[in-house]
Amino acid sequence: MRKDLERFFGPRSIAIVGASQDLVTISGQPLKHLQSHHYRGKLYPVNPKYQEILGVKCYASLAALPETPDLVLVLINAARVADTLRQCGKKGVPYVIIYSSGYSEVGGAGVNMQQELAQIAAEFNIGVIGPNCQGMINVADSVFAGFGSVFGFDYDPGGVSMVSQSGGFGFSVMNLAAKDGGLNFRQMVTTGNEIGVSSLDFMDYFIDDPQTSIIVGYIEGLKDAHRLVDVGNRALRKKKPILAWKVGNTEQGQKAAASHTANLGGAMALYQAAFRQSGIIQVEDIQDVTDYGHAFQCGKLPAGNRVAIITISGGAGILMTDECVARGMQLPQLAPATIEKLRQIVPSFGSLINPIDVTAAIFSDMSMIGRTLNAILDDPHVDSIAMINASLPGETAARIAAEIAAVAKQTDKPIFLAWSARDAVAQEAYATLDALNIPHYKSPVRCGRALAVLSSYAEALRRHAAQRSEKALAITSADARKMLAGKKEDVSEYAAKQVLAYYGIGITREELAANAEQALAMARRIGYPVALKVQSPDIPHKTEAQAARLGLTSDGAVAAAYDEILRNARAYNAAACIEGVLVQEMVTGGIEAILGVTNDKLFGPAVMFGLGGIFAEVLKDVAFRIAPVTKSVALDMIAEIKGYAVLTGARGAVHADIDALADAIMRLSALALDLKDHVAELDINPLFVFAQGKGVKAGDALIRPLVGERREERGVGDE
Amino acid sequence: MRKDLERFFGPRSIAIVGASQDLVTISGQPLKHLQSHHYRGKLYPVNPKYQEILGVKCYASLAALPETPDLVLVLINAARVADTLRQCGKKGVPYVIIYSSGYSEVGGAGVNMQQELAQIAAEFNIGVIGPNCQGMINVADSVFAGFGSVFGFDYDPGGVSMVSQSGGFGFSVMNLAAKDGGLNFRQMVTTGNEIGVSSLDFMDYFIDDPQTSIIVGYIEGLKDAHRLVDVGNRALRKKKPILAWKVGNTEQGQKAAASHTANLGGAMALYQAAFRQSGIIQVEDIQDVTDYGHAFQCGKLPAGNRVAIITISGGAGILMTDECVARGMQLPQLAPATIEKLRQIVPSFGSLINPIDVTAAIFSDMSMIGRTLNAILDDPHVDSIAMINASLPGETAARIAAEIAAVAKQTDKPIFLAWSARDAVAQEAYATLDALNIPHYKSPVRCGRALAVLSSYAEALRRHAAQRSEKALAITSADARKMLAGKKEDVSEYAAKQVLAYYGIGITREELAANAEQALAMARRIGYPVALKVQSPDIPHKTEAQAARLGLTSDGAVAAAYDEILRNARAYNAAACIEGVLVQEMVTGGIEAILGVTNDKLFGPAVMFGLGGIFAEVLKDVAFRIAPVTKSVALDMIAEIKGYAVLTGARGAVHADIDALADAIMRLSALALDLKDHVAELDINPLFVFAQGKGVKAGDALIRPLVGERREERGVGDE
Repeated sequence: MRKDLERFFGPRSIAIVGASQDLVTISGQPLKHLQSHHYRGKLYPVNPKYQEILGVKCYASLAALPETPDLVLVLINAARVADTLRQCGKKGVPYVIIYSSGYSEVGGAGVNMQQELAQIAAEFNIGVIGPNCQGMINVADSVFAGFGSVFGFDYDPGGVSMVSQSGGFGFSVMNLAAKDGGLNFRQMVTTGNEIGVSSLDFMDYFIDDPQTSIIVGYIEGLKDAHRLVDVGNRALRKKKPILAWKVGNTEQGQKAAASHTANLGGAMALYQAAFRQSGIIQVEDIQDVTDYGHAFQCGKLPAGNRVAIITISGGAGILMTDECVARGMQLPQLAPATIEKLRQIVPSFGSLINPIDVTAAIFSDMSMIGRTLNAILDDPHVDSIAMINASLPGETAARIAAEIAAVAKQTDKPIFLAWSARDAVAQEAYATLDALNIPHYKSPVRCGRALAVLSSYAEALRRHAAQRSEKALAITSADARKMLAGKKEDVSEYAAKQVLAYYGIGITREELAANAEQALAMARRIGYPVALKVQSPDIPHKTEAQAARLGLTSDGAVAAAYDEILRNARAYNAAACIEGVLVQEMVTGGIEAILGVTNDKLFGPAVMFGLGGIFAEVLKDVAFRIAPVTKSVALDMIAEIKGYAVLTGARGAVHADIDALADAIMRLSALALDLKDHVAELDINPLFVFAQGKGVKAGDALIRPLVGERREERGVGDE
Repeated sequence: MRKDLERFFGPRSIAIVGASQDLVTISGQPLKHLQSHHYRGKLYPVNPKYQEILGVKCYASLAALPETPDLVLVLINAARVADTLRQCGKKGVPYVIIYSSGYSEVGGAGVNMQQELAQIAAEFNIGVIGPNCQGMINVADSVFAGFGSVFGFDYDPGGVSMVSQSGGFGFSVMNLAAKDGGLNFRQMVTTGNEIGVSSLDFMDYFIDDPQTSIIVGYIEGLKDAHRLVDVGNRALRKKKPILAWKVGNTEQGQKAAASHTANLGGAMALYQAAFRQSGIIQVEDIQDVTDYGHAFQCGKLPAGNRVAIITISGGAGILMTDECVARGMQLPQLAPATIEKLRQIVPSFGSLINPIDVTAAIFSDMSMIGRTLNAILDDPHVDSIAMINASLPGETAARIAAEIAAVAKQTDKPIFLAWSARDAVAQEAYATLDALNIPHYKSPVRCGRALAVLSSYAEALRRHAAQRSEKALAITSADARKMLAGKKEDVSEYAAKQVLAYYGIGITREELAANAEQALAMARRIGYPVALKVQSPDIPHKTEAQAARLGLTSDGAVAAAYDEILRNARAYNAAACIEGVLVQEMVTGGIEAILGVTNDKLFGPAVMFGLGGIFAEVLKDVAFRIAPVTKSVALDMIAEIKGYAVLTGARGAVHADIDALADAIMRLSALALDLKDHVAELDINPLFVFAQGKGVKAGDALIRPLVGERREERGVGDE
């Protein structure tokens, strides 16, 4: 499919199929908006009912056009769209926006109609946007190709480009952020049901677009979610922050998402994992976009997360401190030399402990502002400054802003301001700040939050740079693939752990016995005490079936247990296929963890880590990452869970072998990728994590093979 | 101290000590602001330097005034304030605002100076506000008694009254919420270091003030925190919501709070417990105040938490759904009759599953809006409506607003709107809504959040009404008090559990043996297996000292263990005072919980509940409540923790005796109140919670007595 979207955003000619003389209706609006915003290319309304619309010659059909337009807008009844799309294909039209709705979002016949459109688009290599979308605005080049009240206004061009799966909400973000929030947009496109060009395609394009500096996305669900981490990492390399909504986070929200654009919501946990892995910044509301957008436009990145807060209002200083610290920033103590310098400036009733209360006295002599800021900027412990100017208005405000601006020009360290004066009473001050892209916010909370987001992003950039030299493990095991080939039922413990062993993940010492004599010999080889467990795909819950015995300490006990287990297993399920009895070492000590693989339909293989028992099951305290997972990402995963302290010696426990745990996660990631056509789910539960230097050992494991529909979809043969 | 604050907010005369002719300085501003806002009472500037200021006769001293003013503003150097305050006292002045700073917030001599002021205020029964504050604005009566840029503007009077411990931040909240947020204030006062009239005094006053409908507070720390729950409950009874900041939530934020107004930050956990117990709504930022304020001003309370979301933008509907559900609301399915009615109105490509996508088609015929809303309002499953109107502007917007207003007038169910049109393009629509107090928000997230807050508040009111018939247990035990009288060192297990038993909390069967023969006899009485533990205030960690033995099953084992334990205890600490050896039943089964009492310096006795092991220690997953705790509050505490599922049968466990657990919490609350002069801290760890109907049993306990300074402060004799 076409991805050279420059021609999409900057079409030399646009045809409008279904254009109407009723300029209030949806089909009447695009021509009106394109004209009123002075679109510079050729316009071809297509509608057999009219000779002209708004003074522009109207054509009876696409075939009648004098040239092949770069872009066709389709605004006709859903039932007639397929035919039009085919005509576009025959004419060689590169891009088509389908506004019409009535497709998969309504279910039933709509689903089939949408599939037909996708097939036509593929056949003719058309870049389709939509259906069920609201179009595009290219502010920079005055292309207003869509409908809705937001199209009625002019906008100042800027460096923010946005793609939204929702039309109504997406355009309201642009309108409010631009008009009320002062954040200027470059391009804005809505993708609706996304049968063709996807949100990630647009993000990919924005990453390479030299005029775009900030990317915004509104995501309900991505059909090509497996690309998300790559797109995020590419944006990191180009230092273009991506601010994104991921909605449908609650069960009911997800239902709404499914019925809306017919996208699968995907698993929120995987989206969040992908965001975290690739530095994508999650936003919750429109103001976040404006607030963070202004933060990024300052053009500076703090070298670390240490902020000096300067305030004339103690209360606001506390609020900002709470917000910054809660979001991972630190308030360093100032160096003695800095304190020495400040003592000359700040009155005795001020405070030189960070947050630094300089009191309003520093505004009595404007030169003190510069001296104060410079003293703090020179401090090697300080990476950024957040200054709180209360509600100061008018001319005083203007003079203060000028002083701050003079300092900001000379430094690489970000200076952010919390300034509560209303726009109406501090126009000159704010204009001075805006001219230099010095971020200022009405509340200390918003200011602290935006600075913390900038700081986290800078950290993500540093982490990403460090990780680029890292390589994820790649392991190929023909044995493992052979073992799983054609499997349809759950693979039970012994075989599943053999698979783990192929990828170098430690497992308990164990052998599979076919009779009591073998079991005895194995028990002696392994060493007492041992456990005996029946192995059968038909008995997934061995304990429930009383088909497992632990802590056997003698030959006699093993022999007795062997018979008992088989008896119980047959009593539990007479038809069960019994593979044998597993003789296994008894593990003592170690912390119980859980590792897992989920081979997501949209994201592909992802790995999961958590602690055993209540941590995973009751508290859902687990971390996900999309494979591949490198060592530092595995360590980040481990440190992410709330129960992390359990691994580092909480409650008098020994420090666990976190290094070996991270290694096992990497190996599991390699397994997940190597077996992505065979494994749907994999659980290691428990994974025993021993003391530092003692490694890890899988205590039990289960593999659910990839079968049926999923395999066919992927085009995987059963070899 | 004076609490009749009506005269404070509406003084008939005001003296300004330290008034200056330099109208820009802090001491020059109050007279200027009082005059320019047309204060209707008498003004008496006091300064020996001047004959007059701004045409008002200036007096050389307070003594020279022709009358006793209702209110004196003090704006002089800290060192001279005590003398002035004494003069106020002698003259019988009821209220004094001390603006001057340089007191406990700077430490050192400032602390003593502040204490002196407090003594003078007490001696003369003066209601002191401050020191280190920014004054007061009574919008309703045009009393602008303070300094700062915010005093330079006029405000429309309304029903919101606010008290803030921060001057700068407090007034910026009022200014932004009023001017940009359209929320009108009645009275606004800042209290600074709060040596006299406290934030809770003001809240108490606002609760009884008939013109105040919403109360806002900015709290750094309350010296009279023990009153917080009572004040909150009183506000609930008067149906006046309290919106409050509690700042200083992080360690560093707390440090800033201490250095700022010299308030102790108190424990955030106790503030949050008190807020939750009494329906106080915590806010995080200025916009929360405006958003929630408008929600409450709608004058309707939903009867339940079931919201119908109506949208013309699927995307916005999902966002709002996420927000509502995350905050405890439910999206019910509509009744069949409602769906029947809606089918006549909503186009086939809309969706009648809540969130209900009515599509923009319903705006094509204005009468459809009323029919749609009324059909949904009539649904018995629906308690409130949130409607999303995207960015619709202009005349269409005005007509839609009028239709909605007509419906809203006729219903008791709240109707909230998310409407993203900018103010500039939807003035008429918004004016129509504002006239009827129909809340509208620029983003669906803010709309959903505000409705959820209103809904939670309505729920708190219902809960409060139900709880009023409940009585907390009151238990008095002279024996317990006698046992703890004069105790200075930690009270060890046996005695601590005797204290628990006095209040009816179940404990393990156990007796204290003075020799091996006694131990044997006790073990037989209790029944094997038993545990033996040394009892000594000098050996708090019995296991570490190897002075405890568990699971003893025979006379021989008991005899041997008895000697061994005493030997080990003496080896561990030869000087230890040994009270005896505890012979105790071994408990099997049961879930381990932790109960505790903390007798907070500011809040008084509070009780704590958590689950044992990692829950409390690693995850800090505990719930606090200020005593007294009734049954339903105890049940709320239990259900609050994240690990709650462990008690209700998660992981195949039996359902725990939650009723008995709640009873134990109530009894502990009664103990904490009865022994509030004796107990500083108490821990029950573990408390075994058995299966339903089987009760609870304290496995171990420790009491730390209240000693030294704390007891003296409280004026408690050693009897």
